[in-house]
Amino acid sequence: MSLMSIRLGIVGYGNLGRGVECAAKRAADMELVAVFTRREPSSVKTLTGVPVYSMEALEDMKNDVDVLVLCGGSANDLPMQTPTLAKDFNVVDSFDTHARIPEHFANVDAAARESGHVAVISVGWDPGLFSLNRALGGAILPDGSDYTFWGRGVSQGHSDAIRRIDGVLDARQYTIPVDSALERVRNGENPTLTTREKHIRECFVVAAEGADLERIENEIKTMPNYFADYDTTVHFISKEELMRDHAGIPHGGTVIRSGKTGIDGQNGHVIEFKLTLDSNPEFTSSVLVAYARAAARLHGEGAVGCKTVLDIAPAYLHPESPDELRRKLL
Amino acid sequence: MSLMSIRLGIVGYGNLGRGVECAAKRAADMELVAVFTRREPSSVKTLTGVPVYSMEALEDMKNDVDVLVLCGGSANDLPMQTPTLAKDFNVVDSFDTHARIPEHFANVDAAARESGHVAVISVGWDPGLFSLNRALGGAILPDGSDYTFWGRGVSQGHSDAIRRIDGVLDARQYTIPVDSALERVRNGENPTLTTREKHIRECFVVAAEGADLERIENEIKTMPNYFADYDTTVHFISKEELMRDHAGIPHGGTVIRSGKTGIDGQNGHVIEFKLTLDSNPEFTSSVLVAYARAAARLHGEGAVGCKTVLDIAPAYLHPESPDELRRKLL
Repeated sequence: MSLMSIRLGIVGYGNLGRGVECAAKRAADMELVAVFTRREPSSVKTLTGVPVYSMEALEDMKNDVDVLVLCGGSANDLPMQTPTLAKDFNVVDSFDTHARIPEHFANVDAAARESGHVAVISVGWDPGLFSLNRALGGAILPDGSDYTFWGRGVSQGHSDAIRRIDGVLDARQYTIPVDSALERVRNGENPTLTTREKHIRECFVVAAEGADLERIENEIKTMPNYFADYDTTVHFISKEELMRDHAGIPHGGTVIRSGKTGIDGQNGHVIEFKLTLDSNPEFTSSVLVAYARAAARLHGEGAVGCKTVLDIAPAYLHPESPDELRRKLL
Repeated sequence: MSLMSIRLGIVGYGNLGRGVECAAKRAADMELVAVFTRREPSSVKTLTGVPVYSMEALEDMKNDVDVLVLCGGSANDLPMQTPTLAKDFNVVDSFDTHARIPEHFANVDAAARESGHVAVISVGWDPGLFSLNRALGGAILPDGSDYTFWGRGVSQGHSDAIRRIDGVLDARQYTIPVDSALERVRNGENPTLTTREKHIRECFVVAAEGADLERIENEIKTMPNYFADYDTTVHFISKEELMRDHAGIPHGGTVIRSGKTGIDGQNGHVIEFKLTLDSNPEFTSSVLVAYARAAARLHGEGAVGCKTVLDIAPAYLHPESPDELRRKLL
């Protein structure tokens, strides 16, 4: 592993891009070279003063960047962007449409293999660290069950769904795990839980003046896929209250593997991995930067192709050398 | 990865060896070939009927075993046994003397490289899964603090120390994390904690008839290294109570990384990994078997030398293929 800094580029400068900028600043072995944007570069002001270029400038900077961290969205940006940019760069993305991961993997793998680059996809916490823990748990306790609880945290998709209702000006939706269900799983009871038994949904809604609040509440609670299968509470609040009390983007969750060992399955074990995050995008960005370090190192070793968190050994993520890690952390 | 079974051998048949036997039985891709012991083989009866051989038989079975799981102790067995057996076999051990890991690694690495085998050392939960989580946490949240709490669980070393006191017939010592300290860490307070503030020690002691209980209690509570730095409680109980209520070997613990992100460190995050184990040796054995799978696969790919949990990607541990893992777990 080189003593030289790993030179990062950021593609897309929203919440995730700003988080990568902050995380790179805290990493002693990283240097943030540039932000690339589809907006007019002069209109974008970065937190740390790092220069901003248009996407077209990428072509001339192939030798100036070791890893591009792709901070676009999974619906419209990454399916095209990741395989395209993997032709010229090592890349890391946070593609999180679970059902489409195999297809995205295949596209990115073909591009990265052909060009001799490393591409790490679906990095973050779910998919990402949660996936890693599901794999660990299943490997260690094959005779067991997996549970994933999300929250307490803001769901952007559910907040957006409420905002589309007529008469709603703004909204914030929190996904909250049901404490009693979580306790049963932690106690090793291995319960079978319905959707309604695992999570509740709490909504804070700013309605237009004179809007029919009863109708809005009913439309939320009966909305298929998003709310109909959950116990949902709706609070109408003012625009000022929303800005004051719900401006953050906290999230988190828990992955639990509960399983049996012993000749007769007489001993129970619970493995729990829990995240409590003040800022969902900043934490995801921090995971992206750790895996960007791995991408640079793997590329340096001659590795090629698409990888996920399941394919990368922990030592690649940490700035210290394997010797130091064995001495200090093992 | 081969569709053929991975053929395991167990070296040493105590609690850990029996745990490996049980774990191998639950792994569809594993076949337990033999147990090797220093005792007279005919005196050892296995749980599943797997054959028992003397250590001398190992020499003739080099082609019959893919991975040897070494179930001896870190003080007297593994420092010699792991490098010696790595000359003829892929091996996995649970060497847990933290301070001597670099030396053990160097010895095992030299032997395994020379012979072209894979040796995975210090596998279990601490060192092991806890180390993995310390590396992950530090890599993702570089501006933060690590905390490890052990228990509630039986400490064999502390129980043995009590048994050496004059007048003590038997004893069991539980290490217990201090709830209030754990809560402060979980809340992201980043406290500086003394030894006494992190754990308490609870002892259940069977004393000889007529022994001076006050002297025994005082000797326990003032014992340097083991108890003097802790708040310790001592309960005198009967042999029958000890057998009835304290026959199990539960353990567990929690690794927490607490850190900050954002341009001014304004957002806090807590990563927690927690184990609650009915049987410490059976869980450790289950981790050993998952890493034995990785050793066999790595050897099949041509890898050589000594590895730890920090050097092995999660996908190697799980029986399903990388394709299946991406589809089901990511």
